[in-house]
Amino acid sequence: MPRRQTDLSTKFHAHFESSSTKVRQFQVHDSDVRAARRRHPELARRLRITVGFDRDGLDRALQTADFMLNSEPPRDSLRALAPKLKWIQTTGAGVDGLLPLDWLPDGVTLTNNSGAHAAKAQDSGAMGLLMLNARLPAIAHAQRAKQWLHEFSSPIAGKTALVLGFGDVGAAVGRGAQRLGLHVIAVTRSGKPIKGVESVPVARLARVIGRADFVVVATPLTPETRGLLDAEMLDRMRDGAGLMNIGRAAVVDYDALCARLASGRLSGAILDVFTPEPLPTDSPLWTAPNLMVLPHITCDDPRYIEYLLDFWFDNFGRWLGGRKLKNIVEPARGY
Amino acid sequence: MPRRQTDLSTKFHAHFESSSTKVRQFQVHDSDVRAARRRHPELARRLRITVGFDRDGLDRALQTADFMLNSEPPRDSLRALAPKLKWIQTTGAGVDGLLPLDWLPDGVTLTNNSGAHAAKAQDSGAMGLLMLNARLPAIAHAQRAKQWLHEFSSPIAGKTALVLGFGDVGAAVGRGAQRLGLHVIAVTRSGKPIKGVESVPVARLARVIGRADFVVVATPLTPETRGLLDAEMLDRMRDGAGLMNIGRAAVVDYDALCARLASGRLSGAILDVFTPEPLPTDSPLWTAPNLMVLPHITCDDPRYIEYLLDFWFDNFGRWLGGRKLKNIVEPARGY
Repeated sequence: MPRRQTDLSTKFHAHFESSSTKVRQFQVHDSDVRAARRRHPELARRLRITVGFDRDGLDRALQTADFMLNSEPPRDSLRALAPKLKWIQTTGAGVDGLLPLDWLPDGVTLTNNSGAHAAKAQDSGAMGLLMLNARLPAIAHAQRAKQWLHEFSSPIAGKTALVLGFGDVGAAVGRGAQRLGLHVIAVTRSGKPIKGVESVPVARLARVIGRADFVVVATPLTPETRGLLDAEMLDRMRDGAGLMNIGRAAVVDYDALCARLASGRLSGAILDVFTPEPLPTDSPLWTAPNLMVLPHITCDDPRYIEYLLDFWFDNFGRWLGGRKLKNIVEPARGY
Repeated sequence: MPRRQTDLSTKFHAHFESSSTKVRQFQVHDSDVRAARRRHPELARRLRITVGFDRDGLDRALQTADFMLNSEPPRDSLRALAPKLKWIQTTGAGVDGLLPLDWLPDGVTLTNNSGAHAAKAQDSGAMGLLMLNARLPAIAHAQRAKQWLHEFSSPIAGKTALVLGFGDVGAAVGRGAQRLGLHVIAVTRSGKPIKGVESVPVARLARVIGRADFVVVATPLTPETRGLLDAEMLDRMRDGAGLMNIGRAAVVDYDALCARLASGRLSGAILDVFTPEPLPTDSPLWTAPNLMVLPHITCDDPRYIEYLLDFWFDNFGRWLGGRKLKNIVEPARGY
């Protein structure tokens, strides 16, 4: 890739757009940008950064923007709205809400925020596996009924965790599992070898899922993963196995899951992702037996925007230097 | 200690007594003894073992017993009942129910089952710390009200766990905490140096407890630890800190704890020990805000009796060889 913009006086325009309906941790405010500029003074000199909310003034900003940070970029006539746009950074890791990517103009690179989630995902993966092993979903359900569920479980070391999706989040879950002494089966699209774990292509999922004491879903939502853990696949899980979903809700058939939790075929589930979120009050998942509802907290950090902006500045430095950006979303693959 | 009983044909009588009101995992049955004999054939040849329940036939067995395994040995006139008795092994680790030990005849050694709990305690300690860090007690409480409590927590590495009591269980919790990258403060009676952790005597607890993000109670119940975490000590904890009790209930003032959980001064608690157990249906702890009730499961393993009998046979081998027994309870210390 050619080195760009050798004239050090050239300034680029970046527009950081947020939605005020998201929680504060996912909003970029002026104060966040000022702090990030102080952490990256050399790069900051090359930038004019505008901050906007709820598309108020977005059209005007896009007329001159070279870069945009936005979890929901406008898709209709983007090239006409933003003639200079070169690169869009999403606020989150998952871009399933933007698929298919046929709206992405030629010459515009899309990058996601995969990577900000690793430390928390490792903690959450270890926590979820230990909780499933100790039957905490059933115990918490029993607590609601003031019941003393006095059942023991053996130590977790030596048991098997299958991690579906082994990207940033899945690999972090795998590390957490290995530290606890678990055997890890990583299920990925290609099944390419991954150091230290047993790697299996998703086409063979049905053949290996029955070996797992615990299944952790950490995959993005794509046409290939949607509904992957349907009733039939859940029936291939081991008796008494547990399930954690920190990927995307639509990968798992939650109705089928609830039936298997109620019957005792599966011992417990911890779900962190739902459609829609927040989970509506009338959802039966709130009171389903042996199921813990987590409010989409397993992979996020209060310093999320700080990490995101550091990542963005580093990537901007790569762009200035003519190097390949990190976390480029491949339109054909969808993540 | 002199070598005992060089005549290899001498058989000793061990009586293993259980209560049928305890859960199966804490009962010694004939089948357990047969399996243990097969695992220790040489030692088994030196033993006649009787198995009893609910004191039916206990008096007769004690007339000839050299050894007794029993979680609630008879205390009145024990020497008269059991003239040959040399050694009592308890089923559990805690002997607080047997204190004071003034009933223990001279020449009878008491050993506990400390050590069987380490693997599970390490798992449970890590689980509890991760759950407290992720505010799971508050989230589970919110689930009961169908509320989406969307609050993030930072990764656990670098935070501080204070472990009160650093015996078998506490040290296992400490190992689990260190593997998660936590700084560990071990609070013990003497404060003697412990490799790899910061060691503090209990007399200085009030001065260090405010440094902890998480406090884990893993101490036996003794006159010194009873009520140690009273309202005043809880008020010295850091704002938003969490507490886990896997030791004994009476170490912590649960009423004072509940008040501080309800006000938000402390962020969450995970309690595994109660007085009495099972926790009665009318206990306010079942529904206390930001408090998870665990049914005394954090330190026990379904293979508990197997480990106990292996420990007992190994200790019997030490006794035969004239070596000091493991896990001797010191009457003056009370554990």
